[in-house]
Amino acid sequence: MTQHNADALLAGNRVTLANYEARHFGWTVSAGVATVTLNRPERKNPLTFESYAELRDLFRQLAYATDVKAVVIHGAGENFCSGGDVHEIIGPLIDLPMPELLMFTRMTGDLVKAIRHCPQPVIAAVDGVCAGAGAILAMASDLRLGTARSKLAFLFSRVGLAGCDMGACSILPRIIGQGRATELLLTGRSASGDEGLAWGFYNRLCEPAALLDEAAKLAAELVAGPTFAHGITKKMLHQEWSMNVDEAIESEAQAQAICMSTRDFDRAYRAFAAKSRPVFEGD
Amino acid sequence: MTQHNADALLAGNRVTLANYEARHFGWTVSAGVATVTLNRPERKNPLTFESYAELRDLFRQLAYATDVKAVVIHGAGENFCSGGDVHEIIGPLIDLPMPELLMFTRMTGDLVKAIRHCPQPVIAAVDGVCAGAGAILAMASDLRLGTARSKLAFLFSRVGLAGCDMGACSILPRIIGQGRATELLLTGRSASGDEGLAWGFYNRLCEPAALLDEAAKLAAELVAGPTFAHGITKKMLHQEWSMNVDEAIESEAQAQAICMSTRDFDRAYRAFAAKSRPVFEGD
Amino acid sequence: MTQHNADALLAGNRVTLANYEARHFGWTVSAGVATVTLNRPERKNPLTFESYAELRDLFRQLAYATDVKAVVIHGAGENFCSGGDVHEIIGPLIDLPMPELLMFTRMTGDLVKAIRHCPQPVIAAVDGVCAGAGAILAMASDLRLGTARSKLAFLFSRVGLAGCDMGACSILPRIIGQGRATELLLTGRSASGDEGLAWGFYNRLCEPAALLDEAAKLAAELVAGPTFAHGITKKMLHQEWSMNVDEAIESEAQAQAICMSTRDFDRAYRAFAAKSRPVFEGD
Repeated sequence: MTQHNADALLAGNRVTLANYEARHFGWTVSAGVATVTLNRPERKNPLTFESYAELRDLFRQLAYATDVKAVVIHGAGENFCSGGDVHEIIGPLIDLPMPELLMFTRMTGDLVKAIRHCPQPVIAAVDGVCAGAGAILAMASDLRLGTARSKLAFLFSRVGLAGCDMGACSILPRIIGQGRATELLLTGRSASGDEGLAWGFYNRLCEPAALLDEAAKLAAELVAGPTFAHGITKKMLHQEWSMNVDEAIESEAQAQAICMSTRDFDRAYRAFAAKSRPVFEGD
Repeated sequence: MTQHNADALLAGNRVTLANYEARHFGWTVSAGVATVTLNRPERKNPLTFESYAELRDLFRQLAYATDVKAVVIHGAGENFCSGGDVHEIIGPLIDLPMPELLMFTRMTGDLVKAIRHCPQPVIAAVDGVCAGAGAILAMASDLRLGTARSKLAFLFSRVGLAGCDMGACSILPRIIGQGRATELLLTGRSASGDEGLAWGFYNRLCEPAALLDEAAKLAAELVAGPTFAHGITKKMLHQEWSMNVDEAIESEAQAQAICMSTRDFDRAYRAFAAKSRPVFEGD
Repeated sequence: MTQHNADALLAGNRVTLANYEARHFGWTVSAGVATVTLNRPERKNPLTFESYAELRDLFRQLAYATDVKAVVIHGAGENFCSGGDVHEIIGPLIDLPMPELLMFTRMTGDLVKAIRHCPQPVIAAVDGVCAGAGAILAMASDLRLGTARSKLAFLFSRVGLAGCDMGACSILPRIIGQGRATELLLTGRSASGDEGLAWGFYNRLCEPAALLDEAAKLAAELVAGPTFAHGITKKMLHQEWSMNVDEAIESEAQAQAICMSTRDFDRAYRAFAAKSRPVFEGD
């Protein structure tokens, strides 16, 4: 490949997002960590048609971002997210014809797909209310930090809908087990922070005042690691979801061989040989 | 579709089961909740060829039932179910040729399929012995309430058989994890109520005297919910078992769009707007 | 089939391994229980190119072994296994071209495949360090006994690699849940014995001094069971990994019908009828 062609490849697959100006939520990038802040605290940070679409488009762009290596999602105030706004989403949906209903459910599903497909680890920092589509956002993240007072509720049945929203019937059982997922999705009951920890929904619980800092610290640790390899780990966790064991092992043999060709693998070995700490650069 | 044709559709897909007269177990229907009572308490409620076949046929009929919106399964006396009767099932099996052996294992498997395919949430109320095929019935249910003294045991290896009975190698690992399921299926050891709760097999533990009431209360809560949507939730938990994440999300987008076209969704929104509690009707 | 032909079938599918002389680890067989001892305790029992290849080949032979009915894997000294040796594996890998990298990752993956495909239950007895490829060996086993001081760490990210090694992204989430697995694979952090027990990684914790005895005792109990049926249980847990529920139930109907044609099933029934304890013979 000539240099010209290589440049063309890079040009079409690289963006920077540090200066992205979000319209419907907060967005900052610092030292490789992007922070999404759902920020309508007076309403417990509901999602709207606009914020869904913008989040979907932004998470899709993350696949090409060179300046973001991990993402933290949290809510302003003392709540994570109350889900789809009743007035701004549920009301209008009542009157829509089927093609537009499907347009909506595909849009929300596409947000989850975008979160699962971006290479960056996504960390949800969950305090207070984490309900409906908010619970889905937490579920769709790679890692979850909670608080003792966080309240997780898949509220869909309370508004006359099914629990099969944005991948919940596929993803939630793999995180907390089929029996617990069935209960949460059918009944819509809240799970406490302690329950969420015991069930493996939260990776750990934090003090509310320390939650965002701890999420940022975890993100920074991941950014200091081999970020190209992290992206492969995330991709394979996704790819192998419904593979059989033998197929998964062959896929991992290929994926890990790719990582063994990276400079970060070389850096780690040289650091070890020099009894120093490796400095990864993500390539 | 003309009204005549619509009537023909309904006629072929609707039955009432309140007056069904069960021969090999107890059967009652009250306010939309059906209760199956395994009722040979002097033998700890074993299953027989006859009760397997009748349960299979009845659960298949539940797909069309208009008067049953949730099912509770429990055992008479202080035990759930001791599994296939040694004298009435295992003895005769010893001498059967292969086609009849497969006839038997398909019949028992078809009971689990029928439990998984009926739209009603099925709640197992498990006290005392829950062994062999009894453990499978509990596992195949959607929700499980236990007691501290309940004893869960997949006894198949104790009678010279494999743990792969009626879907156990597929379903049990998704409920309690692959390592614990492997141990229970290989060793046949009993799990206590506390273990079953910690592992996610039971949704909660109850006092033995309150167990059936609590199961009935949970069933009644589900019956008061959007039962059409509940049926879709259950169907999607089943459908997405081996889908990949992207396929599951698209399937849920379609399934939830269906639910957004129901009257129950409309009822929920109107109740919310009127600051009242929705009254769901299951359509 | 003539007797000559039957003999030819048996001859090509039966080996004895009691006298196998292992070169790169300890190997003993006693009363049907084989014990693999990773035995370079001064280095915490690392794996090497040679030990990987020999373990792979030996586990493949176990599919045909008539004198081994269960396997225990443990480490000499107070550690299980520190994973791939930095000097003997990682160093040489740095300079290898892609085909040889894939040769290596396929070799390690083939070891996991061989562990999953042999009919014998494999029990990992895990004390102390259980890291990198050592963590994978424990994960790939059917049952795991740990100690309070055991330290489980999927260290791949620490050496610049991805967590998708030898099937980890497929197998680990099914054992401990998707969220916990994601954390361990991305961060490389250690999990304590208590965490591993609560998460279902370990089936139980033992005192370090009693660990190997307890693993041997568990193996002996399995060897005293219906070992042909145990092999079918293990095979179906593997086969059904990505089947849907209905397919799994039909597969189990067939597999269990096979087991109902074995002598061990007959022995169990006759023992029960005689109020004695069955003596299984594995056929």
